[in-house]
Amino acid sequence: MRLEEKTISSKLIYDGKVVKLYEDEVELPNGRPATREYVRHVGAVCILPLTDDGQVVLERQYRYPFDEILTEIPAGKLDSPDEDPTLAALRELQEETGIVPREIVYLGDYLGSPAIFGERIRMFLARGLTFREQKLDEDEFLEVFQMPLQEAVEKALAGELPDGKTQLAVLRVHAMLQKEGKIQ
Amino acid sequence: MRLEEKTISSKLIYDGKVVKLYEDEVELPNGRPATREYVRHVGAVCILPLTDDGQVVLERQYRYPFDEILTEIPAGKLDSPDEDPTLAALRELQEETGIVPREIVYLGDYLGSPAIFGERIRMFLARGLTFREQKLDEDEFLEVFQMPLQEAVEKALAGELPDGKTQLAVLRVHAMLQKEGKIQ
Repeated sequence: MRLEEKTISSKLIYDGKVVKLYEDEVELPNGRPATREYVRHVGAVCILPLTDDGQVVLERQYRYPFDEILTEIPAGKLDSPDEDPTLAALRELQEETGIVPREIVYLGDYLGSPAIFGERIRMFLARGLTFREQKLDEDEFLEVFQMPLQEAVEKALAGELPDGKTQLAVLRVHAMLQKEGKIQ
Repeated sequence: MRLEEKTISSKLIYDGKVVKLYEDEVELPNGRPATREYVRHVGAVCILPLTDDGQVVLERQYRYPFDEILTEIPAGKLDSPDEDPTLAALRELQEETGIVPREIVYLGDYLGSPAIFGERIRMFLARGLTFREQKLDEDEFLEVFQMPLQEAVEKALAGELPDGKTQLAVLRVHAMLQKEGKIQ
C-alpha cells in the first residue's frame, strides 16, 4: 500500500521565535487533496543524568500550555539545526543543573507528536557526574532535585510522570541497566 | 522558588482544523515580561493492543512533518474535549485495526512536548482482542501488522521506534507485565 503524501503547496502561517506553523496542501495516496497543519521546530535534546549511587537528577518546571508544574529531565533547544546534539546536551545539562558528566551516551530519537509537531528530540544518558555551578538564564526558572531511579520507575508506571520524554528516559535507562545485569 | 507565570494577554494567531496557535504575553516569576508561543489541541488517545500470545498490534503511517513512515501504536484525536477517553480509545482502535478488546486499561497521560504543544494523550492497554472489520476513513492510509512484545522492547531500546508514545507504551507494558510476574 502506498502511504506517502505529495506536497502541492506550502504556506507559512506563523514565523515565531521558537516555532513556525505551516498549512500545506497535499495529494493523498488515493490522489485526493487534503490539508496538513503542522509545526516546525529547530530540534532539541534531553538528558537523563544518573549519579553513581543511582539517583536521577530532575527538574520541576512550569509549563505554560498546561498551567502545571511538571517533573522533567533536563532538556533544551538546539542553537541551530546544524548544532552537534551531543554538545547541545552537554551545554543544556550544565546550564540547567551545573552537571559536567564523564560519559554521555546517545539513546536515540524521540518524536513527541509526529503527526503535527515536527520536533525531533535526541535523548541522552549522562553518567560520572560532577556538580558545578548552575548557569540559568536570568529568565529561566526551575528547581533541580534528585530521585532514586527505582522510585522514578514506580512513578512512571503509576502515571505520575506525565512528561513523555521523562517517563520514557526513566524506563529506557532502567531497562538498559537491567539488560546489562547492573540492576534487578 | 516561585515557578508559575501569569497571563497578561492572549492572542489567537491561527485557528485551524486540528490545532490553534497562540502568542501570549506573560509575567515571569521575577516580574519581567516574556512571550509564550504555544499550540492547543483537543486531546488524543493511544492504545497498545496486546494479543493473548504476546504480539503488539502496530501501524505503519506516513507522518508529513518528518516525511517518514513511522511505526506507531493506534491513536487518534478526541471527537470533543468532553469525550470519554476510554470510548475514544475503543472507537479509534476499532476504526484503525478492527480490534474489539475484552479489557481496556488506562495507563496514564503522555505530554509529548509540554513547553509548546498543549496536547494531552491518554494511554491505554487493550487485551482479549477480537479482530473484526477495519473502518478506515476514505482518506486514511495505514498498514496494520504485529510484532512480538519482546522484539518491540528490543527495538525501543535500540532507538528504532522513534515515535515517543510507541516506545513508551511498549516499555511501560513490558515493565508492568514483568512486575506482575507474567514475563521475565
